[in-house]
Amino acid sequence: MDEIIAFTRGVPPVESFPVKRLEECAKLALELDAGRVLQYGTAAGYAPLREWIAHEYRVSVDQILIGQGSLQLLDTLARVTLTAQDAFFLEQPTYDRVLTIFRRSGAGLAGIALRDGRLDFGQLESKLKSGIVPRYFYLIPDFQNPSGALMPLEDRRRLIRLAQDHHFHLIEDGPYRHLRYYGEDLPTLFELAPEQVIHTSSFSKLISPGLRVGFMILPPNLFQSVRKFAEDTYINASYLNQAIASEFIERGWLSQNLVELKELYRPRLDTLLQALDEHFNGMATWIKPQGGFFVGMNLNEGLRVPDRERSQSAGLVLSDSRGFFLEGGDQFIRLPFCALNSAQIREGVKRLRSLFPDY
Amino acid sequence: MDEIIAFTRGVPPVESFPVKRLEECAKLALELDAGRVLQYGTAAGYAPLREWIAHEYRVSVDQILIGQGSLQLLDTLARVTLTAQDAFFLEQPTYDRVLTIFRRSGAGLAGIALRDGRLDFGQLESKLKSGIVPRYFYLIPDFQNPSGALMPLEDRRRLIRLAQDHHFHLIEDGPYRHLRYYGEDLPTLFELAPEQVIHTSSFSKLISPGLRVGFMILPPNLFQSVRKFAEDTYINASYLNQAIASEFIERGWLSQNLVELKELYRPRLDTLLQALDEHFNGMATWIKPQGGFFVGMNLNEGLRVPDRERSQSAGLVLSDSRGFFLEGGDQFIRLPFCALNSAQIREGVKRLRSLFPDY
Repeated sequence: MDEIIAFTRGVPPVESFPVKRLEECAKLALELDAGRVLQYGTAAGYAPLREWIAHEYRVSVDQILIGQGSLQLLDTLARVTLTAQDAFFLEQPTYDRVLTIFRRSGAGLAGIALRDGRLDFGQLESKLKSGIVPRYFYLIPDFQNPSGALMPLEDRRRLIRLAQDHHFHLIEDGPYRHLRYYGEDLPTLFELAPEQVIHTSSFSKLISPGLRVGFMILPPNLFQSVRKFAEDTYINASYLNQAIASEFIERGWLSQNLVELKELYRPRLDTLLQALDEHFNGMATWIKPQGGFFVGMNLNEGLRVPDRERSQSAGLVLSDSRGFFLEGGDQFIRLPFCALNSAQIREGVKRLRSLFPDY
Repeated sequence: MDEIIAFTRGVPPVESFPVKRLEECAKLALELDAGRVLQYGTAAGYAPLREWIAHEYRVSVDQILIGQGSLQLLDTLARVTLTAQDAFFLEQPTYDRVLTIFRRSGAGLAGIALRDGRLDFGQLESKLKSGIVPRYFYLIPDFQNPSGALMPLEDRRRLIRLAQDHHFHLIEDGPYRHLRYYGEDLPTLFELAPEQVIHTSSFSKLISPGLRVGFMILPPNLFQSVRKFAEDTYINASYLNQAIASEFIERGWLSQNLVELKELYRPRLDTLLQALDEHFNGMATWIKPQGGFFVGMNLNEGLRVPDRERSQSAGLVLSDSRGFFLEGGDQFIRLPFCALNSAQIREGVKRLRSLFPDY
């Protein structure tokens, strides 16, 4: 049997890591600022990186909270602000780890379907009309995890109007936004209506997951309580890692890295879409992402995601798709393409196709 | 006014950080193992460091969970295993941040007094006899935060017998243990009864807090659930930082660093004890720690800790002592001595004394 091919999580390939540059940044961070990067600090984060983020997003530095990945910050936000009395909306499908985190809060979770990559506004509006107004609606508008969908501008505006009219906040998760392989940037929800949106993102997909540096832009009235809870929980996330990211950015290496990542990932996306066209035409639908890490595939009626054993027998590992849904999910397959080379992608799709021999 | 002198938190002095060696370790970690240290990993932690800890503590590597500081791991343990129906004991005084974390769990917290540095077994036994048996009893037997107390061997044995007889677990926090300036090591609670104890510790005081590397040794039956919860919350703590600690240890620099830290801190402890003798004799009691970061002082009846404004007027910042106690605490002062030089320590104690002009 050849090597196992893993269509599992959204991990970057090892060859994408800018190792030499990160070595240089670690050296600089320690040489230039050991007194800060090796010491305890406030949970808000390493000041130079907070300042860069604040400038980049045109907000006050007092709204920037940096943590050990954005997931940890979402968990902290949930612990501080969500109760079992709250409603909480998410796209269906959505990022499985976030679903787990918000499920814990005890809040009443409700999914709003993505259909062919578009949010089902009928479903959303009918929920709101029936009086179910969420505390938050969590979304990944740019190259959504797990579907790859991009929310059109008109949908962004419509969603914001609903949030304003019904007084709920949007949580916008943006880790893939800067990995756009085709087309032009759309404004973020946060840019369109900063007062209505909590924006979160991370450097995991843009530099390296191993740095564990994510951030959240909080409304001024929430910032201190969330920061305080974070400090009470873990004091602060590593300033050393945040300083490495900061040095990396300061040297202009982030923009250069993005160019290189896009050159690496774009042909992988192309290969995946080609292979799907070749093998799954008529059996499933998928949107053609303009960026990000994933293509999400919806199998036609009557087809089911093969279970773990059957996948393994074909030399494949898939994610458990049920994790992306509040219920169901057994017709959905997430295909992360960034960590596989073209040959692996082609072979992986062929193996996946072989699991539906009767079709 | 001269510089403010801060008797606040247990932070190491900047001059104690082995900057050049950490630069070397960061370079090595990235050169030798970029594929692991820059990637996502399991929440359990970086394998070489886990293996070292397992060897050091003579346990299975499958019991070692590494996180972004031991506080985060305690928080995770509380979230996984504690409910509002549980009782939870802590020394009084205790580490304020841990008190905050376990208070959140909703468990019924009860304090067991430290009197002149000795645990009040009468109080503990009467609680147990009345049927209040905790899920956990959290302790810092070596150079306790905030009192500086060392638990005598006979008390360790007696405590373990009680834990065995009444079926509760001890959580032993050991971050200061290796900073012993006088005397000989006593066995840890964990060494005396590994099946009865969850041991946690960190490299914050032994290498640098900025690494944010702490660890916990869990009983085999708890390990997977706590690890899984951690993974669901933050995926993993930074392997880069864990690899830096691992390289540091592998090169023999940890033991060397401990020698240097003890040389730096021992005279500071001596100076503090001298200054207290000189200025607070007859006004307060304190134990003479054999190691660690703190001397805890109990003011005599009738004396109260000066409030923040009065302390500041004398050029001092003190911790809020009430944080170390479930109730009360206004006769207790924690004096961390490691981050102050001898002149600052002498001046700080003099200023503190000046806040009690009528005595």
